[in-house]
Amino acid sequence: MAIIVQKYGGTSVGSVERIYNVAHRVAAAVDAGHSIAVVVSAMGDTTDELVSLARSVAACPSEREMAVLLSTGEQVTIALLAMALENLGCNAASFTGPQAGVVTDGSKLNSRITAFSAVRVKKALAEGKVAVVAGFQGADKDGEINTLGRGGSDTTAVALAAALQAHSCEIYTDVDGVFTCDPRIVPDARKMNEITYDEMLELASLGAKVLHPRAVECGKGHGVVIHVRSSFHYEPGTLVKEEIDLETGTVIRGIACDKGQAKIAVVGVPDKPGVAARIFTAIGKANVNVDLIVQSIRREGENDILFTVCADELPKTLTVLEPLVKDVGAKELFHQNSVAKISVVGSGMVNSTGVAAGMFQAMAAENINIEIISTSEIKITCLIAEDRVEDAARAIHKYFNLSDVPLYPENSSETTEVTGRNNQVCRGIQ
Amino acid sequence: MAIIVQKYGGTSVGSVERIYNVAHRVAAAVDAGHSIAVVVSAMGDTTDELVSLARSVAACPSEREMAVLLSTGEQVTIALLAMALENLGCNAASFTGPQAGVVTDGSKLNSRITAFSAVRVKKALAEGKVAVVAGFQGADKDGEINTLGRGGSDTTAVALAAALQAHSCEIYTDVDGVFTCDPRIVPDARKMNEITYDEMLELASLGAKVLHPRAVECGKGHGVVIHVRSSFHYEPGTLVKEEIDLETGTVIRGIACDKGQAKIAVVGVPDKPGVAARIFTAIGKANVNVDLIVQSIRREGENDILFTVCADELPKTLTVLEPLVKDVGAKELFHQNSVAKISVVGSGMVNSTGVAAGMFQAMAAENINIEIISTSEIKITCLIAEDRVEDAARAIHKYFNLSDVPLYPENSSETTEVTGRNNQVCRGIQ
Repeated sequence: MAIIVQKYGGTSVGSVERIYNVAHRVAAAVDAGHSIAVVVSAMGDTTDELVSLARSVAACPSEREMAVLLSTGEQVTIALLAMALENLGCNAASFTGPQAGVVTDGSKLNSRITAFSAVRVKKALAEGKVAVVAGFQGADKDGEINTLGRGGSDTTAVALAAALQAHSCEIYTDVDGVFTCDPRIVPDARKMNEITYDEMLELASLGAKVLHPRAVECGKGHGVVIHVRSSFHYEPGTLVKEEIDLETGTVIRGIACDKGQAKIAVVGVPDKPGVAARIFTAIGKANVNVDLIVQSIRREGENDILFTVCADELPKTLTVLEPLVKDVGAKELFHQNSVAKISVVGSGMVNSTGVAAGMFQAMAAENINIEIISTSEIKITCLIAEDRVEDAARAIHKYFNLSDVPLYPENSSETTEVTGRNNQVCRGIQ
Repeated sequence: MAIIVQKYGGTSVGSVERIYNVAHRVAAAVDAGHSIAVVVSAMGDTTDELVSLARSVAACPSEREMAVLLSTGEQVTIALLAMALENLGCNAASFTGPQAGVVTDGSKLNSRITAFSAVRVKKALAEGKVAVVAGFQGADKDGEINTLGRGGSDTTAVALAAALQAHSCEIYTDVDGVFTCDPRIVPDARKMNEITYDEMLELASLGAKVLHPRAVECGKGHGVVIHVRSSFHYEPGTLVKEEIDLETGTVIRGIACDKGQAKIAVVGVPDKPGVAARIFTAIGKANVNVDLIVQSIRREGENDILFTVCADELPKTLTVLEPLVKDVGAKELFHQNSVAKISVVGSGMVNSTGVAAGMFQAMAAENINIEIISTSEIKITCLIAEDRVEDAARAIHKYFNLSDVPLYPENSSETTEVTGRNNQVCRGIQ
């Protein structure tokens, strides 16, 4: 009897009717002979409402008490879902995060899971019950209630699957899976059948909407196969796993777009040790998250350091940098708002050439200028003007024939044919 | 530094504004140099709303899941009150029942407290914090969430006061204290300054509205002085404690009325062992709560057994009794609806005579017929027609001069004078 962990987000349990949809789905999996543990979030907007309630009490409520307050949200859902399952004749038992054995690191609102015994969950499953577990929460070693921060329920589900050595972890969402690009930008974007953990992490801007990077990291660390799928139908979604068969040959997996970026250039930085450290330490202390960092030698003894931040954080970043630029002996500080990142991601790049050239060529044909280029082993990112990012995504998507990525790579005949085309394109631009 | 436990019910924390009223009151006690632990219930109608939500999911939700659901109510309150206190500059930490160390007996929705370590509460108090504890809830030895049933938060507060060896336990409510009679019936009923645990238990129909009998029992068992007082002002309320100074001499403490009773008479019961047991076992199995039981020998070899039940349960009781009456060889079964109990309560009765006579005389003067009389060491109860119970209460209250019970018995001069009058009345009717 395979153990399957299913996770349903706040929208999927946003009303009594929807809770019953979930209950029916769980009951069907039980009827199919599986042993099911379900992880759920707070209903609909509950968490936002609790945050508002707290803010009506205190402008800046303590994180400790906020965690105590917010954790009630999932506790309501687990009780209601267990009641619904029992009403359908399905034995069930609910567990809060602490009851399920989720041990957290003590950070009140952005905690990480340090251990997950799942003793009581295993016992419930052994007794033939569905275990309904509250996502997003746990308790530290002193019994203090912690919440897991964004993507917390996904992480609870994957960590529970690891603790139970589950056959798979199904993350139910309101989309069909992970797509080659955001379908709102590229209408013929295709759902991927499989993707590696690393690709999923690099595609964060696509993936974070359906599966939080922390959950992906947790899955990678424990070898948990994560199935991202729709809660509206029974079609398979996207499997996130260690290795996919590279012989099926799709070099590029997907295209990610991140708008709302700002570029900052510190020009004429003396080329000596410790300067970059000073700059980024100062920015880090201001709690600004730096994304791309590119350094290129301009002329002997001087560097230009370019990096991007979220556009919202540009003013704060400049405030920190302006005095510092003089201190470190740099010549100028430039910045540019309204830029966007566009990235192509795929493990296959490691073994392929010409992907970068193809990406640049696709954008050149659309007369899109590239500000910065940055690459990792499985990703190429370009910074471009924000108002051209949709054009760039469509052009690159088309260039690499991503609309023809096979839906069922395990179907070898179709696979060979279609991925051949994708490979051919790459070869053609070497 | 005296440790004081304060308890505020759902009405007192029914809105953010009211939570701040409580926070200000707690902060004032802290400023006065006390160490404060606060026990709170769920906000306003939260519990009712959660019950409705559960019933919208399942007509008959399991008690286990209902306890998981309901316990979120107090958890919201503790977080918000702790936030409010911190916002007033008062260090605070909230604790759910299980976190506070409330160990329950495993009954899901009507649990009793079997142990209360209060380790974390003591630590918080030692650190100079206000400990905010969720009433009404705990966890059994397996970590299952239990709720305490009616009056649960009062019991949590008294048990916490016992665990902390607190100076006193203040139960805040929307009335000024415990009165000599229901002021809606007897407009000049007086607030009592002190009452013994036993008197309070006997006055359940008066007291249950302000302090649940379970909490009184718990206070009696652990010698916790309970102060029932108003959350609207700072005037002292009523102290519930072991002994009050009998020299102050008030023989009668208060008058309790219970309407909605039904009298049942099993007439001509053979006088042999085991018959009463059969009758009341059968009624008990039908989950009917029997109140007064009176047996008087009518003639040799035959008894009449009279008892009262709640009028709502009369039909069920008769259904059980009708076949049984023949089985046990009784002659007749009578019943009477629309009767009420009226009781006078006072520890001083032990040492006084004539109280019963005075009570009967007061009612006789009003032409009120007595159906049944039953007495304990500190209580005399009469069953009378329901539509005469207010008249009886007023007559007895006046007869014993209860409106003149001293407000401040510790003020010896006033005390002596006024209690003298009360004693005189009693003596006068010996």
